[in-house]
Amino acid sequence: MIRRLAVIGVGLIGGSLALALKRAGAVQEVIGCGRGEANLNKAVELGIIDRYVTDPAQAVEGADMVLLAVPLGGMRGVFESIRDSLAPDAVVTDAGSAKTCVVEDAKAVFGQPPPFLVPGHPIAGTEKSGASAALADLFVGRRVILTPLPETAADAKARVRRMWETAGAVVEEMDVRHHDEVLAATSHLPHVLAFALVDALGRMGDSEEIFHYAAGGFRDFTRIASSDPIMWRDICLANRDALLGVLRNYQSELDAVADAIARADGRELQALFQRAKSARDRFCH
Amino acid sequence: MIRRLAVIGVGLIGGSLALALKRAGAVQEVIGCGRGEANLNKAVELGIIDRYVTDPAQAVEGADMVLLAVPLGGMRGVFESIRDSLAPDAVVTDAGSAKTCVVEDAKAVFGQPPPFLVPGHPIAGTEKSGASAALADLFVGRRVILTPLPETAADAKARVRRMWETAGAVVEEMDVRHHDEVLAATSHLPHVLAFALVDALGRMGDSEEIFHYAAGGFRDFTRIASSDPIMWRDICLANRDALLGVLRNYQSELDAVADAIARADGRELQALFQRAKSARDRFCH
Repeated sequence: MIRRLAVIGVGLIGGSLALALKRAGAVQEVIGCGRGEANLNKAVELGIIDRYVTDPAQAVEGADMVLLAVPLGGMRGVFESIRDSLAPDAVVTDAGSAKTCVVEDAKAVFGQPPPFLVPGHPIAGTEKSGASAALADLFVGRRVILTPLPETAADAKARVRRMWETAGAVVEEMDVRHHDEVLAATSHLPHVLAFALVDALGRMGDSEEIFHYAAGGFRDFTRIASSDPIMWRDICLANRDALLGVLRNYQSELDAVADAIARADGRELQALFQRAKSARDRFCH
Repeated sequence: MIRRLAVIGVGLIGGSLALALKRAGAVQEVIGCGRGEANLNKAVELGIIDRYVTDPAQAVEGADMVLLAVPLGGMRGVFESIRDSLAPDAVVTDAGSAKTCVVEDAKAVFGQPPPFLVPGHPIAGTEKSGASAALADLFVGRRVILTPLPETAADAKARVRRMWETAGAVVEEMDVRHHDEVLAATSHLPHVLAFALVDALGRMGDSEEIFHYAAGGFRDFTRIASSDPIMWRDICLANRDALLGVLRNYQSELDAVADAIARADGRELQALFQRAKSARDRFCH
């Protein structure tokens, strides 16, 4: 049982975790913290949080579990704010989509990675954001990757694992750097590609007409381009090296496809499309 | 009422149209035609077609409506096969995803675009293919674009329009060349991007693990990469010029995004992502 959960950043992720833990009767009190009071009031109204404060230092007072669910660019500032206010038994975890940067921020603020910090990343979400998008079952059956450090206390890790499992998630562990490479490929790169496509089409002269004829495939393909721009700006900056690696790789692949189309090389196109279809059918059966 | 509908290519599109017309009581008899007898037998079993033949010339005998729903690379061969067997009152339409090439194939076979030919394109489909994927309501509320030519008979156009409307579709008309440009942007380009992404990731050393951590966003984004490779090879070849135009444009956009990430230009990234989100939220509300 969590005595007091402090959720810094009451959006889709933080709000959904709070809802899930409340529904499971696994938390006594949830304190929300954020900058937008309209969103925080909405969160109280929806029963996601019990009350809120706007100062992270106040939010973590007496909390035995602290979740940082803010855009990556805000992590360091939150660490600074809460450093001197954490309860003796507090465990801190986060929901950032990249982990190297979070560990670096923690090192910068705490001198070394504190034993009570368990970096984490729930592989869940939708293109929606804000407390009103929160869902109690968002994490059911979804993966949460924890990237504990050598310095991480075993008890802290166990408590964070238990929290996510209570929310229905499947918890796995991974090396920080490896996490960032894998997520760059499966999440960060697709978001960049989708944003770039919608922007490229939106800048075309007859974009309204173009979008008018977009069908279901386009809608699915571009869904992630409706994601929060600030969150994704931060992810691109925070996971820059890994993202640039897979992006350069993708650009080369696209160059090869464009060449095959220009050369009218049907054999190469068919082989590539078949490889892709086989790979996707295998993993999304 | 259609007396006899000949469906050349009993896949997702041809099969779904046949089902829709049968359900509406708008067709007396449906003759299927294709190369794969297993698929054709399945189509009979599912009540999609009443019987089948494997020779297009035989299939169109006595048919007052002929739908060509084969990959674009097969259109010319079908035109050649059916040229001398069409009934005097036959109307021929097709479901190809590009239209310039179909018109050129018809010109090559018939000398000039025949008045009974109404090029068409239902903007519907899923990543699935084959008769077993057919759905009677696939076209309900979906757009069908007809690209009639100056030579097209008004009566032929009206009959094709009525057929699609009976299946629940919203029928619009567009210039052949313009159709190909719009569809290159909203359909052909996204498919190429998705195929390229899955192939690029599938070729990475730890691809199995990478796909293991792919979440819902990735699943949606890559759904169209499960589409039929031969159909998409043909579309890329058939609509090469328009597709290369939007693809080059996209490559430039992606270069700019990569540069912004490399320069850690958060302002530019945020502006681009915001433009994309606004555009998508506007057209997919």
